[in-house]
Amino acid sequence: MSSNPVISSDKVEGTSVYNANGDKLGSIDDLMIDKRTGLVRYAALEFGGFLGMGTDRYPIPWSMLKYDTTLDGYVVPLGADQLEKAPRYESSNEPVYSDDYGRKVYDYYGVGW
Amino acid sequence: MSSNPVISSDKVEGTSVYNANGDKLGSIDDLMIDKRTGLVRYAALEFGGFLGMGTDRYPIPWSMLKYDTTLDGYVVPLGADQLEKAPRYESSNEPVYSDDYGRKVYDYYGVGW
Repeated sequence: MSSNPVISSDKVEGTSVYNANGDKLGSIDDLMIDKRTGLVRYAALEFGGFLGMGTDRYPIPWSMLKYDTTLDGYVVPLGADQLEKAPRYESSNEPVYSDDYGRKVYDYYGVGW
Repeated sequence: MSSNPVISSDKVEGTSVYNANGDKLGSIDDLMIDKRTGLVRYAALEFGGFLGMGTDRYPIPWSMLKYDTTLDGYVVPLGADQLEKAPRYESSNEPVYSDDYGRKVYDYYGVGW
């Protein structure tokens, strides 16, 4: 990626996601954007069959996604144990992004709300 | 759309855009997101042949997009004269989103930076 401080949503969608060891976990399905403020509330990660997780989506705060030019993807430094207990939802059943829901997600990853 | 305060980026992409008279201007091509903050800096509007504008993209601040449930699309209250002089770029030549560039776009539409 370039030094452009912005990135296109359609480039983020589909980008691979790796753990800290460089193992591929899955990819970004889409971004959930606050209608009022335009802030990306979370990226929805799709873990393609990883640990038998099926088609669930894992909401990850934007600030946790670190782009790695060598891997050409995002690195999310989470272990399998953390992901197993992480907030998730069925892809066909997007949650209402209430403050309660958002706080729960951010708290889980220790990111300030 | 629901009362969910968030919307998925892949639902925004491709959504129709209308002027205040309800005439279709084009559609949203994609969203440009600040890598550091996760804030949508602008939506890139594609005006499909409108006024012979070809495939140029028009950067529009997120806050200008008002969703209209009747039209099932966004309304951007801009006249043809405003759009003719509006900032634009070739779709194959995305600008670097410097502060200068961003301010120029926001100033053009009278939106606070």
